[in-house]
Amino acid sequence: MAKKPSIPKGTRDFSPNEVAKRQYMMSVIRKHFERFGFQPIETPSFENADTLLGKYGEEGDRLIFKILNSGEKVKKADLQALEEDNYAKFSNSLSEKALRYDLTVPFARYVVQHQNEIDFPFKRYQMQPVWRADRPQKGRFREFWQCDADVVGSKSLWQEVELVQLYDAVFSDLGVNGVTIKINNRKVLSGIAEVIGAKDKLIDFTVALDKLDKIGADGVRKEMLEKGIAESAIDKLQPLFDLTGNFQEKLDVLKQLLQESQEGMQGIEELSFVSNHIETIGLQTAHLDLEVTLARGLNYYTGCIFEVAAPEGVKMGSIGGGGRYDDLTGIFGLNNVSGVGISFGLDRIYLVMEELNVFPETVSVSPNVLFLNLGEKETAYALPMITALRRKGVRADLYPDSAKMGKQFQYADKKEIPFVVLAGTAEIEKNLFTLKNLQSGEQKEVSADQLMNELVD
Amino acid sequence: MAKKPSIPKGTRDFSPNEVAKRQYMMSVIRKHFERFGFQPIETPSFENADTLLGKYGEEGDRLIFKILNSGEKVKKADLQALEEDNYAKFSNSLSEKALRYDLTVPFARYVVQHQNEIDFPFKRYQMQPVWRADRPQKGRFREFWQCDADVVGSKSLWQEVELVQLYDAVFSDLGVNGVTIKINNRKVLSGIAEVIGAKDKLIDFTVALDKLDKIGADGVRKEMLEKGIAESAIDKLQPLFDLTGNFQEKLDVLKQLLQESQEGMQGIEELSFVSNHIETIGLQTAHLDLEVTLARGLNYYTGCIFEVAAPEGVKMGSIGGGGRYDDLTGIFGLNNVSGVGISFGLDRIYLVMEELNVFPETVSVSPNVLFLNLGEKETAYALPMITALRRKGVRADLYPDSAKMGKQFQYADKKEIPFVVLAGTAEIEKNLFTLKNLQSGEQKEVSADQLMNELVD
Repeated sequence: MAKKPSIPKGTRDFSPNEVAKRQYMMSVIRKHFERFGFQPIETPSFENADTLLGKYGEEGDRLIFKILNSGEKVKKADLQALEEDNYAKFSNSLSEKALRYDLTVPFARYVVQHQNEIDFPFKRYQMQPVWRADRPQKGRFREFWQCDADVVGSKSLWQEVELVQLYDAVFSDLGVNGVTIKINNRKVLSGIAEVIGAKDKLIDFTVALDKLDKIGADGVRKEMLEKGIAESAIDKLQPLFDLTGNFQEKLDVLKQLLQESQEGMQGIEELSFVSNHIETIGLQTAHLDLEVTLARGLNYYTGCIFEVAAPEGVKMGSIGGGGRYDDLTGIFGLNNVSGVGISFGLDRIYLVMEELNVFPETVSVSPNVLFLNLGEKETAYALPMITALRRKGVRADLYPDSAKMGKQFQYADKKEIPFVVLAGTAEIEKNLFTLKNLQSGEQKEVSADQLMNELVD
Repeated sequence: MAKKPSIPKGTRDFSPNEVAKRQYMMSVIRKHFERFGFQPIETPSFENADTLLGKYGEEGDRLIFKILNSGEKVKKADLQALEEDNYAKFSNSLSEKALRYDLTVPFARYVVQHQNEIDFPFKRYQMQPVWRADRPQKGRFREFWQCDADVVGSKSLWQEVELVQLYDAVFSDLGVNGVTIKINNRKVLSGIAEVIGAKDKLIDFTVALDKLDKIGADGVRKEMLEKGIAESAIDKLQPLFDLTGNFQEKLDVLKQLLQESQEGMQGIEELSFVSNHIETIGLQTAHLDLEVTLARGLNYYTGCIFEVAAPEGVKMGSIGGGGRYDDLTGIFGLNNVSGVGISFGLDRIYLVMEELNVFPETVSVSPNVLFLNLGEKETAYALPMITALRRKGVRADLYPDSAKMGKQFQYADKKEIPFVVLAGTAEIEKNLFTLKNLQSGEQKEVSADQLMNELVD
């Protein structure tokens, strides 16, 4: 193979420095998940195709990566479907498994499958990659990490309150200060659809509204018209597109609009509950804001919905989202299990943190010390010392070859290793080591005990 | 969907308890990798198909999970191949990507792709899942985790010495005492093939020999005969099948057999180097043993090869393996970069640890305290306290609903939460909380400060 190898579009290699930063982020998120009482689960990277297909809408189905059946199983290819240009059907005849598209549907599957082992309410978190055959762009990858926290088995609105706090705790700890946690409620959207007389088109209506940021008010109007929503009805929405003021002021406008809709008024009550308790308790650095045009594409949401925007000045799609779903597990045959959850978009948050330059300098996994290699006898002398240091927790590297000194020092430099130890004939005779601090340039002869003291924290 | 959902054969869900144990294992392995100077990288879950195909032999190719091309791309299906029952060719016409089969080939690809950013010798570790369409059995899954440490860019045998130490450090720290680190050398195998006159059949010879444990001496003989190795040649191998004694005694027998083979003698010299230095420095709990029948299936090994067997009494396939490869990156066009590495089979080691019962009891992510929910006013009173505790690092859970007390206590019991806090009208009036220790049954009224002192480490 002559040409330089590459990786598939939308995927990434992570260098040591990047992995260290990602590990740091995940450890912070994990820590807060656990402080809020969530416990980890993990599900397989691929699920049975029928677990995933049909759960994310038509567009979602198209973005699911399918795994080709192995060996002779491909004999079952539905050639007629291929002939009829029905590629989805043809593909499905070749595939029984598909890569995870998000963590929510696998979680619902998990809850139903393990319902007899689970104590409800069940608070779980999950931090795993997901895959989507989406067009890659800045902050959008074909393999990316989600970090989700969900509770199932309770309708309590305190969970919405705590999830807002959880967002605030994580982003504040990561140094991503000033995110906006946008909140809305599907019942409010239902109420709006009801009062403008488009209740039967609720899904079309919310899917279109969700795109306001991307395609603007005109684009939304156009999509709604195409979906058969009356122009007069759409006109009634105009005030929503221009809604301003603080949380309470926006709620007041909504109340006015929705007084005829019982469902809409309940949505307003739920938003009030969350907003009031968050106001009482206070957030560290995040802001909670009502965003009536926030719809979130996924159809399973039924109550409060969330989306997190990066701090002002940072251009980036949403860095988190979630909401309340009253019957997610119903798709797998377990009814009446309400759930609510939020997700952190690790990869985008990473980009935001890079842009804001908020990764701590201590996030590094460079060795603490490099032992130079001066030959077999010398290395045999050094190895017990290296071994002892490692057992005490020191990250100690040995240069593998007895190469030129310059080359070995250069290796230490490039890897940002702060100390170098060398032991040649002279040191061996005196049963000592030479320790050199590469930052200060200071160099001294030390005993094994002294070396241990210098390098062990 | 009426039937209970399930997951694909050979995959697993991990419960909170299992994830906690796996996290613990990974943190121990990670710690030692870093102490030995390795730094982490990560590669995508799927690679371009041509990166993987042809690298693991015919059998390996069949076990690679291929990802079906998306959308209209399946039009390019090679129907003629299907008609000719050439399923591999048909499959390849439908797929451009494949799931990682191991971490070694993606690592080689990474090194070649990023050769200009890498400082050699490059010591990297990688802990990620891999996928194989293998028949599932005890300790063998279709999705499983490998933890690899490799060095590329140096031929130094000190690395083999350090990798043996690394195995010992990890297994000893995990409490898996008494593993056997089997070592052999491909040059010894070459030498044997040479002296029995089957040099041109080296690969067939080593692949067959590798199966000695599984199919016995007779099976190996049969396979070798089938591959065209002369019966007289195979007869010469008999002493190897019965080799006994300590490391040095076995080496002496080998020396006798291989004195005519330059390559074989070099293999012996390498084994001596590793064995002698390991003997001098000593291992904590592992044993290093020469196993001349160890061949390891993969063709890219060229020097020392390793395999780790679980402690005596535990039935389990190998829990680790690795070796020296002199030209792995050559498959991607970068020649003369020697490498050596070892792998830990996380999933099997987990099963071994369960069997030996060596997971520490402290491996748990249960909350430290549960706040009972006695109603909205009471919870509004408790929430600032919960928030303050979490900010101090306490894992504090709030029961979401104001359910019956019995139910809430049961929740704490089942989740093994040691403390419960409740605050009703009486406590609120006195600005206090009631703290109950569920282990001792002790219960007392405390102030916010006292509660903080009791629960914060």
